[in-house]
Amino acid sequence: MFEKPESLEELVVGIAKTARDASHDIALATTDKKNAVLLRLADRLDRSEQELTVANEKDLELGKEQELSGALLDRLALTKSRISAMAEGVRQVASLPDPVGSEIGRLQPKSGIDIRKIRVPIGVVGIIYESRPNVTVDCAALCLKSGNACILRGGREAFHSNQALAKIVRETLEEEGLSPDIVQLIPTTDRAALGVLLKQDDNVHCIVPRGGEGLIRYVVENSHIPVIKHFEGICNLYLDSEADPSMAEAIALNAKCQRPGVCNAIENLVVHREFAQEHLQKVSQSLAEAGVSLRADPEALQLLSSANVPATAASEEDWSTEYLDLILSIRIVADAEEAVRFINQYGSQHSDSIITENEKTARWFLRAVDSSTVYWNASTRFTDGFEFGLGAEVGISTDRLHARGPMGLQELCTYKYEIFGKGEIRT
Amino acid sequence: MFEKPESLEELVVGIAKTARDASHDIALATTDKKNAVLLRLADRLDRSEQELTVANEKDLELGKEQELSGALLDRLALTKSRISAMAEGVRQVASLPDPVGSEIGRLQPKSGIDIRKIRVPIGVVGIIYESRPNVTVDCAALCLKSGNACILRGGREAFHSNQALAKIVRETLEEEGLSPDIVQLIPTTDRAALGVLLKQDDNVHCIVPRGGEGLIRYVVENSHIPVIKHFEGICNLYLDSEADPSMAEAIALNAKCQRPGVCNAIENLVVHREFAQEHLQKVSQSLAEAGVSLRADPEALQLLSSANVPATAASEEDWSTEYLDLILSIRIVADAEEAVRFINQYGSQHSDSIITENEKTARWFLRAVDSSTVYWNASTRFTDGFEFGLGAEVGISTDRLHARGPMGLQELCTYKYEIFGKGEIRT
Repeated sequence: MFEKPESLEELVVGIAKTARDASHDIALATTDKKNAVLLRLADRLDRSEQELTVANEKDLELGKEQELSGALLDRLALTKSRISAMAEGVRQVASLPDPVGSEIGRLQPKSGIDIRKIRVPIGVVGIIYESRPNVTVDCAALCLKSGNACILRGGREAFHSNQALAKIVRETLEEEGLSPDIVQLIPTTDRAALGVLLKQDDNVHCIVPRGGEGLIRYVVENSHIPVIKHFEGICNLYLDSEADPSMAEAIALNAKCQRPGVCNAIENLVVHREFAQEHLQKVSQSLAEAGVSLRADPEALQLLSSANVPATAASEEDWSTEYLDLILSIRIVADAEEAVRFINQYGSQHSDSIITENEKTARWFLRAVDSSTVYWNASTRFTDGFEFGLGAEVGISTDRLHARGPMGLQELCTYKYEIFGKGEIRT
Repeated sequence: MFEKPESLEELVVGIAKTARDASHDIALATTDKKNAVLLRLADRLDRSEQELTVANEKDLELGKEQELSGALLDRLALTKSRISAMAEGVRQVASLPDPVGSEIGRLQPKSGIDIRKIRVPIGVVGIIYESRPNVTVDCAALCLKSGNACILRGGREAFHSNQALAKIVRETLEEEGLSPDIVQLIPTTDRAALGVLLKQDDNVHCIVPRGGEGLIRYVVENSHIPVIKHFEGICNLYLDSEADPSMAEAIALNAKCQRPGVCNAIENLVVHREFAQEHLQKVSQSLAEAGVSLRADPEALQLLSSANVPATAASEEDWSTEYLDLILSIRIVADAEEAVRFINQYGSQHSDSIITENEKTARWFLRAVDSSTVYWNASTRFTDGFEFGLGAEVGISTDRLHARGPMGLQELCTYKYEIFGKGEIRT
């Protein structure tokens, strides 16, 4: 008669508790069972174009009403080919080795006990993301395969699409005799619900926020649960004195221009003085022709202006700015050591690359640059779970603890020590 | 003329900055150089008995004035044999393999880039501890070998001893041509200094608090830096229906009585009904004779009272209480599944053990108990860096991310991806 409506707090606390209960089931599920769920899910997605399109249309209409940009509306759209690509991604995760239960270390001390370090799931993973609905399926698939329960909280713009996708995942779990609560989507985008979720440290073990810096800062400042994240991608490309000039040019163009709005695109081009004197004019000419606005230190500016390459003076702030746009800062250095000091000071420890034919310089650079991913003679654009062969990624971490770089199945696991004794007691 | 005295904040911020600068040196130091430092340090400790005793005497006298307990004064004392043991511990760390630079994973995706997952130091580790001065040397040695700089903040009681030990470590670093700032001791035990340290997330990457729950809660609630810790050790021993009775008795006695005040001693004895009916009276008799106060559920209480073994009724609170004393709670269960549910609900995910001759039951228990360390037929008392063969430990973690269980050299490292290309660009 006077039944109280469920409060937001009760709702979210309930989701966290049921996820924790369900996490014990998926943690002990066999590889065959987990793969059966994933393959069934992929088939369901392929057959669900109509229901997904209906839900997605609602989001697109609301998006148009709210005058979202064309780029945002495009991200939001679930086309037939995108649905197939999601299904294909799920099949790839099914084909990857199961990380759970593998022995990653062994100790055999004198006492006689046999200590095995075994990879096990983290438990319950919360993933907070923005507009792209495929994240719902990518993250659910990775969490399932790694034996974790997950709580998904997608963005407002993709609300109906995410609900439809999560419904398919949950029905698939039930059809395979598992608890649907292994994958739960928070059924509101009210930020108060997110605030409650971030306090459920008894039942949720890890939070991965994906999105703009504002969202990530909110999560970090309000979470009682460990957060794995990256704020920015200030990536650097260093052209050494012994760089192959045509490789240097091709990689600079790719790393800046192939998709400038992503975190693994470069923001700074760091150039050895000798290389700059011979080749910077040509490299920067190509960048300018590709539409890149150049900001240069005084020495580089002089070289560029003498070749009539348009450029402006870089400010101190430019060296640590993530443009997410066709803008690039150029800095000239005396040697690889100065380049490493510059990168360790101004970069965001995401992805950095050296172009050189000198193996000794390259190996030193790989070790001395303090970033999650360091390249020798390749574009920084490869820092991505799919490109690494991890199927997808739950996030990319510039943290130092637990996970660094693209976070795939292995990084969705922790470990335990399983110890085999013969009655040993401590003396 | 008007020079301002250095504030506490300036002092601690300066320590964090110089530690971060020094961390780049030790991160790139060779194994030979790090071992040379450690072996020289061990020799210096052996030859420094006199200066260490003088400093230690000051702490002991102040401790007596402040009427510290005999147990606490004993922990504080640096005897000749304890100094030798510290030196021996440092030699052991020198003899362990260097974790830095080892390849712990490899990916070779179709694009052609060759991705190597390489173990690297965390950076700067802060260790907050209480009275035992040997922690200063144990932690400095482990951090050095794993290529980390460290900031030590010891307890008030051991202030002079810790200063003397840190001085020896820093002089040894200088004698080997390294920066003494790789190891720094905060020269005050003012809690305000700790508060400042916990906010230095730009320069300090990980905090490990060791000590009572009050200290650890303070650190967790005030830190902007990731914390690796354990609050409590509520460890469980499960005696299965197929347990060897004499092994069960010996391990129960060892796990409870050998040193009851430590985190890996058991607090709950979980007993299969069939084992209880035949053997609980004998096991509990031995525990009572060893001075253990028993608290039992109704069924166990009846069994014990019919054999005149003294015991009281356990309350709900008892199942999740860390006694750190000769007290043990006894709970009877119907089967291994009920035991696992009990342990996952009431334990602190530290160390739990099953005694059984049935391999299938044991392997299921090892996988299903959600703790950092799970034993089959051995005492929980082995959860310890030294017993694991890790030389020592920086701490024991009941967290799930980054490190679980004893935290040794490997866990003092993170990893990076070093990628070897031949000019690959992303298409």
